[in-house]
Amino acid sequence: MKVPPPLGNRWLKILNGFEDTHVMIFIGFGFLMTFLKRYSYSALGFNWLLAALVVQWAIVCQQFYEMKNYEIFINKKTLLEADIMSATVLITFGALLGVASGVQLLFIAVVEVAVACANMYLVNDVFKATDVGGSIAIHTFGAYFGLGVSLALRSKKGDSDTGNGQAAHVADLAGPSYASDVTAMIGSIFLWIYWPSFNSGLADTPEGYQRAVINTYLSLAASTVTSFVLSALVSKHEGRFDMVHVQNSTLAGGVAVGSVCNLYTGPGGALAVGIGAGIISPRLAKFGILDTCGVNNLHGMPGVYSGLLSILFAGLATEENYGDGLHKIFKAMDPAEYTPARTAGGQALYQLAALVVTLVLSFGSGLITGFITKLPIFDRLKESEKYDDEVNWELP
Amino acid sequence: MKVPPPLGNRWLKILNGFEDTHVMIFIGFGFLMTFLKRYSYSALGFNWLLAALVVQWAIVCQQFYEMKNYEIFINKKTLLEADIMSATVLITFGALLGVASGVQLLFIAVVEVAVACANMYLVNDVFKATDVGGSIAIHTFGAYFGLGVSLALRSKKGDSDTGNGQAAHVADLAGPSYASDVTAMIGSIFLWIYWPSFNSGLADTPEGYQRAVINTYLSLAASTVTSFVLSALVSKHEGRFDMVHVQNSTLAGGVAVGSVCNLYTGPGGALAVGIGAGIISPRLAKFGILDTCGVNNLHGMPGVYSGLLSILFAGLATEENYGDGLHKIFKAMDPAEYTPARTAGGQALYQLAALVVTLVLSFGSGLITGFITKLPIFDRLKESEKYDDEVNWELP
Amino acid sequence: MKVPPPLGNRWLKILNGFEDTHVMIFIGFGFLMTFLKRYSYSALGFNWLLAALVVQWAIVCQQFYEMKNYEIFINKKTLLEADIMSATVLITFGALLGVASGVQLLFIAVVEVAVACANMYLVNDVFKATDVGGSIAIHTFGAYFGLGVSLALRSKKGDSDTGNGQAAHVADLAGPSYASDVTAMIGSIFLWIYWPSFNSGLADTPEGYQRAVINTYLSLAASTVTSFVLSALVSKHEGRFDMVHVQNSTLAGGVAVGSVCNLYTGPGGALAVGIGAGIISPRLAKFGILDTCGVNNLHGMPGVYSGLLSILFAGLATEENYGDGLHKIFKAMDPAEYTPARTAGGQALYQLAALVVTLVLSFGSGLITGFITKLPIFDRLKESEKYDDEVNWELP
Repeated sequence: MKVPPPLGNRWLKILNGFEDTHVMIFIGFGFLMTFLKRYSYSALGFNWLLAALVVQWAIVCQQFYEMKNYEIFINKKTLLEADIMSATVLITFGALLGVASGVQLLFIAVVEVAVACANMYLVNDVFKATDVGGSIAIHTFGAYFGLGVSLALRSKKGDSDTGNGQAAHVADLAGPSYASDVTAMIGSIFLWIYWPSFNSGLADTPEGYQRAVINTYLSLAASTVTSFVLSALVSKHEGRFDMVHVQNSTLAGGVAVGSVCNLYTGPGGALAVGIGAGIISPRLAKFGILDTCGVNNLHGMPGVYSGLLSILFAGLATEENYGDGLHKIFKAMDPAEYTPARTAGGQALYQLAALVVTLVLSFGSGLITGFITKLPIFDRLKESEKYDDEVNWELP
Repeated sequence: MKVPPPLGNRWLKILNGFEDTHVMIFIGFGFLMTFLKRYSYSALGFNWLLAALVVQWAIVCQQFYEMKNYEIFINKKTLLEADIMSATVLITFGALLGVASGVQLLFIAVVEVAVACANMYLVNDVFKATDVGGSIAIHTFGAYFGLGVSLALRSKKGDSDTGNGQAAHVADLAGPSYASDVTAMIGSIFLWIYWPSFNSGLADTPEGYQRAVINTYLSLAASTVTSFVLSALVSKHEGRFDMVHVQNSTLAGGVAVGSVCNLYTGPGGALAVGIGAGIISPRLAKFGILDTCGVNNLHGMPGVYSGLLSILFAGLATEENYGDGLHKIFKAMDPAEYTPARTAGGQALYQLAALVVTLVLSFGSGLITGFITKLPIFDRLKESEKYDDEVNWELP
Repeated sequence: MKVPPPLGNRWLKILNGFEDTHVMIFIGFGFLMTFLKRYSYSALGFNWLLAALVVQWAIVCQQFYEMKNYEIFINKKTLLEADIMSATVLITFGALLGVASGVQLLFIAVVEVAVACANMYLVNDVFKATDVGGSIAIHTFGAYFGLGVSLALRSKKGDSDTGNGQAAHVADLAGPSYASDVTAMIGSIFLWIYWPSFNSGLADTPEGYQRAVINTYLSLAASTVTSFVLSALVSKHEGRFDMVHVQNSTLAGGVAVGSVCNLYTGPGGALAVGIGAGIISPRLAKFGILDTCGVNNLHGMPGVYSGLLSILFAGLATEENYGDGLHKIFKAMDPAEYTPARTAGGQALYQLAALVVTLVLSFGSGLITGFITKLPIFDRLKESEKYDDEVNWELP
């Protein structure tokens, strides 16, 4: 591995992306997952351990496809990409929070990063799809990989080792306390605050960077207001808010706008995207698959929605709107580089391909990984050990 | 609404203002208000909802006076201004914490932003007063609007629906717990940390920007040391600190220096401003008006103090000190643009006008808004429902 | 004191160093020290008070050696240096957490900054040692000054005023609660996140800046994974993590790489440094000296380790590796400025001198300061008052 001379001015200027994303990964995801009453140490600890491991492993995996002479080059952009990749694993961790052991999580992380980097190579370099905020390659991938693992881990009926008393104990631990919901808000709000930096961090042009910041900000603001209103309408006691919605659906606007935030959506479009996200995200129905943090609602469905939006806005892209920037954002539409250059419609089809491939690859590889972690060589949690820090920590 | 091409380099460089202010609004104000023992969900939730609503509404209101062809232009500076405007509403929320219902708060926010944007137009564009950190147009306005509402909402004697037992219950909830005072410190310290970014975010020249950062930092450091010393002197048990002072008066230095931080105060002047703020801020006497967070002490009086300082330093401004920057900071003193150009004394008078108009407009419109929210169509809290998350949230 | 015109572009660009370090000092150190169950107010409050005092005092002390005509110049770099200096005092505070009174702490802070600034002048200006992240002049100094004070404050046998019941009470307060360990993680993770900004903030060249960010990031990631693994191996129940390791040893990689992060360590070298830090840091053995936060393990030993590494990498420095940057980093090796210019080996010797002088000066002056604070004019804590907020705060 080598440290090359710095990229020019641009990366020094739009430097914030790295530091801000860093806060999202380690504080944001970490504290958001402290909502369980007796799993805060594990949420924070595994979040930290997994992310610190993944940033190292992702540097290797992400550059696998670009290596020359077996050398890896690292600059600040590399670190930002590694931080972003670790989000994928942390989303998956959210689906499995409290039900997977440390050894299982480490194995899952290592496999997932390898597959996710391959998928990202397909999305960005083969399909040349636009996905600046990673809603397809990060959020959708992480969520459906996690649900694949979760489906594989599902206990068969009669598999439980718990009596009624223990079942009640586990059900109790699977919920929040007043204090744990407050610490979860630290994570949720920091994720919300820096989401514009996350989505814009890898933008290729200053105009695209500014659009990404503005559209993400507007979409988040709209999804937040929508989520609060909807929460008051659908919660058990009418007119009261539900922390599950407030901690999660507020953020859906950031995911939903991710793939299109650097495109010409217009501010009205960004607000509409956010309102849509606020509507589809609150966790009303549940599938049969265990999903502790509701990553399907926060990352999965909004990610797919963002992928669909990217098909729409790619299809609408014209040189009139984007000027010079068109070929920087949609590289395969540049006739100087690719012959024949894609049309807007062609680009839209490739966006669709990126979304479908991501869905299939993530869920499939998650399912296989999940089955592997059921092998006897892996440490598995008993029912009575779920959602409990006791298993993993020296407690005071 | 349209997204224009980016402002030049300057706004990319002094970008931090936006991200840092964002942290202050959503983490800073939100967590500072979690100090009540049973109102943390509401503090964080309403803070988030109100701010997310206001940033959208403020974009419209702030640009109302500059619109051409009914089009609104948005860039990163627009977002920063919207974030700053939401501070006004959150200051008002602080005065009413625990005693206003969600519906009342939403109505108050919508009205307040419209009036505050009109007032800001008067201060900045009509009076051409200098107020880079918003101590006049944001802090003073938000505090006295809130006290106006609070005065209007004051229960008449005998209006209470509580027996003695319930009154004790409400009085108990109106205070902090050990844990809630710790989470409040998250907010207080983040506000403190990023205050230099808040005050300098809209500075017009690089020199003014750097002066704003340095003066704010020095003033905050001085007000913090002063607050601790004073707290130890005046608290119930001599020599002990009081969290009310520590969470609030420490910040008064940031408000007090706000209107003058980009001016030539000199470091000694900035320290003196901070010491003064630390002396006037600790909440010793209370008026008859309910003010849950003590916004009069943190934002009101220090804001007026800052306005008075701006009269002083405007009166002292000379070309010798400011060089080219003089006419960028005091635009009406530029003979190339305004005939006849203002003298320093004339500018001082306009600073006074800005302060007086802000005080009258904020308190008056707050009072009227308060009376409107007492109309039967608004949901009002009973005495027994005050300071209690139970009313607004599904609790674990 | 005067505010000069701004430094050129560079300091506006690499501005993050200031804001990010600010978060580390006030949130990072503050919350990390809330791990004691009944000392959170004091940890946060004294951290804030001491740092706010020190940033003012450090501006004076640091510029004492550069003053012309008794004038002090302040720019953003000055503020960053003052923030960094306050870390020294907060590290010392960590060693004494819960056992020193407020008056003692204030006296210690004032003396320590004066001596630490003299030591920094020796390290940077006399020895011209490289120490960009301050592992020698900040971390090593702060830790061994603190241990010097702690040794002096050690109670003689039979000095205790507590009966058995009280001793048990004090021992109980000297540990964490579940909630206090969670709030401590806020501090620990924010320190971790912004460490690359801390270490790179004062880098002299863009290349050195980027190397400092990357090497610090890699070293931290490596020390984190190593710390978790080691914690699971050595904790009381095998396979469980211990919060003491997780909150502290994870950070040791940042200290360990501090003095060399802007040098050519290569990414592999940075990872190795971090792994080494993760191995030496977990608090396995304790000396007889009281050290509440374990600053010897987090700052002391990793700081010495970093100083030793700086001897190694200075000795290996060649013009081939560094190009033009060589003489900016190792100023005394520049023949245009110093005759005779140092060789790499000579520079290595001066690195050693810087480390040894820092160790002797910090421990010695700490010991003397500690003995002075035992004089009757200082307020001292009784055994029964240790680790207890009650002494210093109005509690709810």
